[in-house]
Amino acid sequence: MTIKVGLLGMGTVGTGVVQVLTDPAGRHPLLQEVEIVKIGVRDTAKPRSVALDPSLFTSNLESIVNDPTIQIVVEVMGGVEPTRDLVLQAIANNKHVVTANKALLARHGEEILELAKRHQVYVMLEASVGGGIPIVNVLKQFLGANRITSIQGIVNGTTNYILTRMHREGGDLQEILADAQRLGYAEADPTADIDGFDAADKIAILASLAFGQRIPLSEVSREGIRNVSSLEIASAARLGYVIKLIARAQLVTGGLEIGVYPMLVPQEHPLATINGVTNAIAIKGDPIGEIVFAGPGAGQGATASAVVADLINVCALLSHPPHPLLSYMPTTAAQVVPPRENQFYARFTTLDQPGVIGELGTIFGRYSVSLETIFQQNRSGKYAQVIVITHTVREADFWQAIREIKELPTLQTVGAILRVL
Amino acid sequence: MTIKVGLLGMGTVGTGVVQVLTDPAGRHPLLQEVEIVKIGVRDTAKPRSVALDPSLFTSNLESIVNDPTIQIVVEVMGGVEPTRDLVLQAIANNKHVVTANKALLARHGEEILELAKRHQVYVMLEASVGGGIPIVNVLKQFLGANRITSIQGIVNGTTNYILTRMHREGGDLQEILADAQRLGYAEADPTADIDGFDAADKIAILASLAFGQRIPLSEVSREGIRNVSSLEIASAARLGYVIKLIARAQLVTGGLEIGVYPMLVPQEHPLATINGVTNAIAIKGDPIGEIVFAGPGAGQGATASAVVADLINVCALLSHPPHPLLSYMPTTAAQVVPPRENQFYARFTTLDQPGVIGELGTIFGRYSVSLETIFQQNRSGKYAQVIVITHTVREADFWQAIREIKELPTLQTVGAILRVL
Repeated sequence: MTIKVGLLGMGTVGTGVVQVLTDPAGRHPLLQEVEIVKIGVRDTAKPRSVALDPSLFTSNLESIVNDPTIQIVVEVMGGVEPTRDLVLQAIANNKHVVTANKALLARHGEEILELAKRHQVYVMLEASVGGGIPIVNVLKQFLGANRITSIQGIVNGTTNYILTRMHREGGDLQEILADAQRLGYAEADPTADIDGFDAADKIAILASLAFGQRIPLSEVSREGIRNVSSLEIASAARLGYVIKLIARAQLVTGGLEIGVYPMLVPQEHPLATINGVTNAIAIKGDPIGEIVFAGPGAGQGATASAVVADLINVCALLSHPPHPLLSYMPTTAAQVVPPRENQFYARFTTLDQPGVIGELGTIFGRYSVSLETIFQQNRSGKYAQVIVITHTVREADFWQAIREIKELPTLQTVGAILRVL
Repeated sequence: MTIKVGLLGMGTVGTGVVQVLTDPAGRHPLLQEVEIVKIGVRDTAKPRSVALDPSLFTSNLESIVNDPTIQIVVEVMGGVEPTRDLVLQAIANNKHVVTANKALLARHGEEILELAKRHQVYVMLEASVGGGIPIVNVLKQFLGANRITSIQGIVNGTTNYILTRMHREGGDLQEILADAQRLGYAEADPTADIDGFDAADKIAILASLAFGQRIPLSEVSREGIRNVSSLEIASAARLGYVIKLIARAQLVTGGLEIGVYPMLVPQEHPLATINGVTNAIAIKGDPIGEIVFAGPGAGQGATASAVVADLINVCALLSHPPHPLLSYMPTTAAQVVPPRENQFYARFTTLDQPGVIGELGTIFGRYSVSLETIFQQNRSGKYAQVIVITHTVREADFWQAIREIKELPTLQTVGAILRVL
């Protein structure tokens, strides 16, 4: 069965999606049943980085949402208008929709979901929050046993990148922002990120999923990072905190508290070590306790992974039972190979006499085991501990060297051998 | 529609599952359609911590897997035999199975999954790996866009608890193991944990899901933590590493490398900060990059969350489309409340003169804002920076105090106000 898909948009995310769909080997087998039949773009003549039949492209976006052969519309054009109109038309024409559009969902989610319910189609929104982290679908499908009490996290990569650099370099917001813009980590107009609008869209969506409630964006408290100075970063560090832009929603007596704030995060908190453009989301619930998901919060590959996951899930439901995503059956026998290369840590107890380190180094060298670190410690009269960390070496070479080292008259015991991750 | 469920076993996990199922308010609505009709236990007369109709209990386990009214069998009795027989019988009778049994799956998964395929029923195994972390279902359903290249993590809570304490306290394995046994974090016979058998079962299951291949347990390399001495812990720390028991599978040229080893993990690696009984799993794939999941790896609540998630997923498939777990429609309007209580950080620029800290403290005290820290820094002639961290206080009180502080003749500016996570 072939499932016909139309794409609205072919920017960074759209290109990533097409790259996955046109190269399905080694990915989920259901992808082989997906066929892209139309791609809506502003300029059909623009050169593209993926080789595609030019006849797929159209600048008539309505022709996609009205095409009776298309079963699933993937919306990766972004923006609120005319996207909203196109998505509503697609749904009205009984098409399933996969979208990465947080701004659209946070503003018009209710209208879109209502119409989808009426037409019995799915609106899939994994890519709208958390990039590659499958947080939306986890909330939909795998935490149903729980009463969720809070969801909080770092959901904007740009501000986290800036704050991470402010902590590491001590610079001020404006200079690091300028540098981030130059490197492509921040938009020319940084308002959506810096002032917390993007994070507010995302926490509204997450909280709606976690608590099953409609949340108007206007009710989300919002404060960006504009007022976080290098002085705050330094004071926070001195007190044992890092500053992060935290989006959070929590059940309190009387209702739901939801907002985006720059916050002091204790250094031992799981969100404190989330650096750069990485996103992380922590969920507390009863009876699960707390779980944390971290991963790339944006970028072509990560977002494409989320869009395609949604696509696969809708495709699975269009096929016949048993549900191909829930029934799990390995198809081939694994070709298991022994460990081949690793970095190693080894501790040797040797006689404490000159030349021991030289002997060890010579033997390792003979078997092409290059060393990163070698040092002696705990010299106590007769014996010494020699500790070695190798570079990444062939396991066979390493173990041959160890066999020869065991023959050394100066060696007492091999204290421990561990691999380095 | 009521969905009839039979439970095999009523130990820690079974009790957790029953607690969730008998108290469904505030959890997923589908749970209200689940009815426990039989519970198989060794001793029907044993007192239970959950109030249940005594007629539900039976010591005749076969009567559950042969009961024609039961649609889903939840296996939480553990062990390989007679569990294998009971699970196979349930499947042969066309029942779906939800199981938390890693030992059974790692040894007889192929036979069980083959039979399930033949009978077109689901075998759901979320609870077998990673406790509450929904790693199994994420691998099944949400990473299909990717070619996975590696999966590695900390999947045994007992050994991670012991290693964490060895790092913190400097003690030796045997003494901390004895203490862990006393506290209930380790079994009386610790072999399965300490020697890596449990982690080997789990990585075999995870790798099979990630790579879609059958993996005989005999091909999983396995080394436990018995030889990790306090000397290694100290040397590793000195070199910038922590020692963790890592289960990993990675694609290399020629096949799959899979094993469990105590490894040196660089302190800045995401797995290095996973402490105590927490589990964490990192997956690398193309195009997603790397994502990391962390959460409680064991325990009644976490495991029950995973079992019930599977149960809900099977129930969803027994109902009619649209799939109740994929269609997302908030049912009520949120009652959003403003932030009510928080810990605050505030920085004030004041005239550098005696009594300023007293003035600030007095005003905060007047509004019941108790202070955790107050100190002055950057005194430079005329001005000083005063930094305050409050305890958790009412927002209204805090902002009233700030309003009054702004009137102080000694105050120059309020430099920053941030919340503490």
